[in-house]
Amino acid sequence: MGYTLTEKIIKSHLVVGEMVKGQEIGIKIDQTLTQDSTGTMAYLQFEAMEVPRVKTKKSLAYIDHNMLQEGPENMDDHLYIQSVAKKYGVYYSRPGNGICHQVQIERFGVPGDTLLGSDSHTPTGGGLGMLAIGAGGLDVAVAMAGDPYYITMPEVVKVELTGKLRSGVSSKDVILEVLRQCTVKGGVNKVFEYTGAGVKTLTVPERATITNMGAELGATTSVFPSDEMTKLFLDAQGRGEDYKPLAADPDAVFDEIVKVDMDILEPLTACPHSPDKVVKVSEIEGLAINQVAIGSCTNSSWLDLMKVAEIVRGKTVPENVSFVIAPGSKQVLTMLAENGALADLLNAGARVLECGCGPCIGMGQAPSTDAVSLRTFNRNFFGRSGTPSADVYLLSPETAAISAIEGVLTSPLGKVNLPVINMPEKFLLNDTMVVAPAPEGTEVEVIKGPNIKPFPATKPLEKIVAGQALIVVEDNITTDHIMPSNAKLLPYRSNIPYLSNYCLAPCDPEFPQRALDNPGGFIVGGSNYGQGSSREHAALAPVYLGIKGVAVKSFARIHKNNLINNGILPLVFENEADYDTISLGDELVIENALDAVKAGQAKLINKTKGLTYVMALEVSERQKEMLLAGGLINLIKSKK
Amino acid sequence: MGYTLTEKIIKSHLVVGEMVKGQEIGIKIDQTLTQDSTGTMAYLQFEAMEVPRVKTKKSLAYIDHNMLQEGPENMDDHLYIQSVAKKYGVYYSRPGNGICHQVQIERFGVPGDTLLGSDSHTPTGGGLGMLAIGAGGLDVAVAMAGDPYYITMPEVVKVELTGKLRSGVSSKDVILEVLRQCTVKGGVNKVFEYTGAGVKTLTVPERATITNMGAELGATTSVFPSDEMTKLFLDAQGRGEDYKPLAADPDAVFDEIVKVDMDILEPLTACPHSPDKVVKVSEIEGLAINQVAIGSCTNSSWLDLMKVAEIVRGKTVPENVSFVIAPGSKQVLTMLAENGALADLLNAGARVLECGCGPCIGMGQAPSTDAVSLRTFNRNFFGRSGTPSADVYLLSPETAAISAIEGVLTSPLGKVNLPVINMPEKFLLNDTMVVAPAPEGTEVEVIKGPNIKPFPATKPLEKIVAGQALIVVEDNITTDHIMPSNAKLLPYRSNIPYLSNYCLAPCDPEFPQRALDNPGGFIVGGSNYGQGSSREHAALAPVYLGIKGVAVKSFARIHKNNLINNGILPLVFENEADYDTISLGDELVIENALDAVKAGQAKLINKTKGLTYVMALEVSERQKEMLLAGGLINLIKSKK
Repeated sequence: MGYTLTEKIIKSHLVVGEMVKGQEIGIKIDQTLTQDSTGTMAYLQFEAMEVPRVKTKKSLAYIDHNMLQEGPENMDDHLYIQSVAKKYGVYYSRPGNGICHQVQIERFGVPGDTLLGSDSHTPTGGGLGMLAIGAGGLDVAVAMAGDPYYITMPEVVKVELTGKLRSGVSSKDVILEVLRQCTVKGGVNKVFEYTGAGVKTLTVPERATITNMGAELGATTSVFPSDEMTKLFLDAQGRGEDYKPLAADPDAVFDEIVKVDMDILEPLTACPHSPDKVVKVSEIEGLAINQVAIGSCTNSSWLDLMKVAEIVRGKTVPENVSFVIAPGSKQVLTMLAENGALADLLNAGARVLECGCGPCIGMGQAPSTDAVSLRTFNRNFFGRSGTPSADVYLLSPETAAISAIEGVLTSPLGKVNLPVINMPEKFLLNDTMVVAPAPEGTEVEVIKGPNIKPFPATKPLEKIVAGQALIVVEDNITTDHIMPSNAKLLPYRSNIPYLSNYCLAPCDPEFPQRALDNPGGFIVGGSNYGQGSSREHAALAPVYLGIKGVAVKSFARIHKNNLINNGILPLVFENEADYDTISLGDELVIENALDAVKAGQAKLINKTKGLTYVMALEVSERQKEMLLAGGLINLIKSKK
Repeated sequence: MGYTLTEKIIKSHLVVGEMVKGQEIGIKIDQTLTQDSTGTMAYLQFEAMEVPRVKTKKSLAYIDHNMLQEGPENMDDHLYIQSVAKKYGVYYSRPGNGICHQVQIERFGVPGDTLLGSDSHTPTGGGLGMLAIGAGGLDVAVAMAGDPYYITMPEVVKVELTGKLRSGVSSKDVILEVLRQCTVKGGVNKVFEYTGAGVKTLTVPERATITNMGAELGATTSVFPSDEMTKLFLDAQGRGEDYKPLAADPDAVFDEIVKVDMDILEPLTACPHSPDKVVKVSEIEGLAINQVAIGSCTNSSWLDLMKVAEIVRGKTVPENVSFVIAPGSKQVLTMLAENGALADLLNAGARVLECGCGPCIGMGQAPSTDAVSLRTFNRNFFGRSGTPSADVYLLSPETAAISAIEGVLTSPLGKVNLPVINMPEKFLLNDTMVVAPAPEGTEVEVIKGPNIKPFPATKPLEKIVAGQALIVVEDNITTDHIMPSNAKLLPYRSNIPYLSNYCLAPCDPEFPQRALDNPGGFIVGGSNYGQGSSREHAALAPVYLGIKGVAVKSFARIHKNNLINNGILPLVFENEADYDTISLGDELVIENALDAVKAGQAKLINKTKGLTYVMALEVSERQKEMLLAGGLINLIKSKK
């Protein structure tokens, strides 16, 4: 029985476990990437591991998120990342060089390699035949330290592409069609592997659009074969030596099949407020619009912007449309500046922003109140644009461009007859904005601006864990409750002491000070505690506040892992009714915590009430080690 | 006796008063411009005047300040300005089209015309031989309504330019030299008129750099003759018909003479934190730097950026320098995109921002903590960059560019041997981003987003003015106390009701609510009340809160005028000791306010204390009319 491409890459990187679907495996990571909003914490964590140099084949640090710089915090973060990268062996892509995923595809991705990135759109690399996965900053730090990355051995979905896209139909429409079929919940613990005769009609940047937005399926990742198109792209990037052919075996067995016939595919759009609310553009054509924004890691390649320039050349966007373009990389922008396409875009009325994530992550270009904004991006969640009342539609560059010119939502089908835009035989190669690490690094001083605070240290688990119930919260507490993230707090992602002042503040503003005054206590919660985003800061702030355990009716999965990674005991009431007996300020104690972790069960004594609770401590053997060591970082340090 | 050019233009526009130095005169305004941070209020005020169409030769509304758009407020403001401009006969320059002063020079300025702009750098137009003056938004609204603009008949300073700039020395160094000689306080009630053999060696953009930064002298404005260079520029802009030759008479008499010998001028820089702290670059050469920023209305012309591109071509900015460029206009940026210079800048590592004011007004690109930032801008006030600990040096594009490449502050003299960069024979002409007003306008609906609130209305002065002493404050209260302006409040410049919640809050947070609860009362203050910036919002918020009079020991001049413009009685204790007898909540009354205004003196009765205070009401005849009408807007409305 043959292997899928996914299985082949996993097999060649497997270091822990067996390739049995649903089981935990550990894989070796070849490349890592970080961006600046998650990167500062990842490198603080890496520093805390006391590993002298990264152990990957290649690690990169990008600056693409916080580039508006309304105060010193952003550039302070840039300088920290620049210096820590130089010291520890990481290549640093300077602000303005481009969006991490776009630059990674252009200059660094290698077919068949694994890539772990502290950004959810890391799967972009699958367009180049990589197994490219998004993860939390600590996971990336651990991978930089040379340790495996643990995932559930995924199922593999075969996405069979047939036919060929018509003029005006785009690879963006392919992924929108997959999202329509599979929904945003359809990809959990799955890899989407693209196959079929249609694959060879798609260039690498077109494939990258698909694997990028595959993140919206909730998938582990998406992957394309590495073939003649891949070779052409790598040759044009001056990296022919990185090419190797890769594909699933003919007799590979897939767990599921999705089919997309590109011959009949139409321009699609994802309606507010979810990437899977997909309809045909023709169904809602004529919708009044206020803004058209082109860019993001999904659709900002040279090919995408050349198509847009072709469509708008010699025309002018009407006065009701704000037409915004954020190019994906310096390579893209410079080539457009050289070949005249940028002048075409400007002449048509485009507002050309710096190369970066920009409006896709709400960093600028918020539309007006009640506006309709057409965007080539990957997410249209409520409020993400910066304007809660705005309706954002996700669509292809072709649909965006023709709509910008027409002034209403317009299907490019029949209206746009693009000439064949040949991929360049040679891309413009100029990597001077990527700073190589110092040969040794020991002499490099890490620059930490006043907003960059050391990572909160933890100690190995002690026998007796005792402290107060410092807060008692209800069911369904989200990570937005535990560690709020908003425009006011985002510049402080590298300052856990500051952020901690807002930990659980939406539930009880006095909790942070109470925890500081009474260190070593517990958070008590209801069911589904920690649901929502994967942000590690929801575990790091409690660490800083001295929290030793979280006792709840049930946990959301990722937050539980984050607590364990950071040495906080995740305790689950075996009898949910016990929850009701705990009051704020009760004195709680676990008398033999070390044995409890090993046994997977703890006795939590409520000294105030004279009660004893049986608490489940369901963790893997690997996680038991982490808890005993006081967290993953300590565990790694202890093994070096 | 002949006339200066200044006097000639004033003479041809004089509608009120006589050309006697120091006396108030009223001049007819040919053109107006607004930008978006002052524009919303100016147009709200214009709307309040109920004038059906603007009465100027040409009025323009630019969007160049608030373009980051982190929330809906900014684009809501843009749409308001766009719609109100269309309705009332104002040309609208869309966001991305460029900085108001740069675009005005390129496309609209006319030698010999008067220009009033709601931006302090409006004197840029003097580079084209205009009498171009910066003013408050209400002044501009009044000018749009066709009424004269009142100034003190200025003294005229002759700035005699001799010789010719050497390669590496720039017109920026000329104005830095004038600032060094005259200081930031040297220009009050003066016009700086440039003459001498050196004038003809300077192109219009070079002249505009000088007149632009002349604002830092505190001058009324600066002006160059209109000559062959002006003709060349206007011809190249396709506007040869706007040319007319203009110069001072040979026997004109100037009040003061300043001399600059360009043959020996060296590259200069203004050190932190004032534009007049000027030293030779050579004196502090080698200074470590972190950022170089090129742009702003002072130095973002085609010529400026071509010089920069020439200097950095084929080189790369070192890793310690963040190299930022904000082009001045779409014309400039598109031409650079067409001729390859933009690619040169990008290849050298430039972060190219959207055309706009950007970092010059603290909208982004804040440097890192303790950074040294070299900027081609016009102001380096403490904290203006967004980073209070940063040191900002103002200098020429040549000095900025060579320093960016060298990585330390570097004098271009001897290092930079620029080829002659010929001004284009034809600039790229594409005005599609300027929206013409509707032919009639009556059918245009003005779009007011939820953040745009109507201008607070006032009523004609009533006979009896009575109310409480709603706040009693001390000496030296600034406009920052009266109406704080910070990043949190700036998006609300078009929302007086919201802003009013913060009126005088630094002195007493309960004042706004107390005033709303007890309408019609008084602010009581010490000496120099209202010092600081000229912001009108420091008068508009009290209007909204129902304040009828401000009783103080003495006023700062501009704030007093703003109060009068808005119908608030400016009362000055003839016996300063009376101030001490007033307590918060005292019931105050003026029993015949109408007569008091006419007489220039009021009796203010403190009913609570049983005292009567004699208050001076020192205002011009014109201002008496305003106070009786309940403010300038009412006065204008009453005369239509």
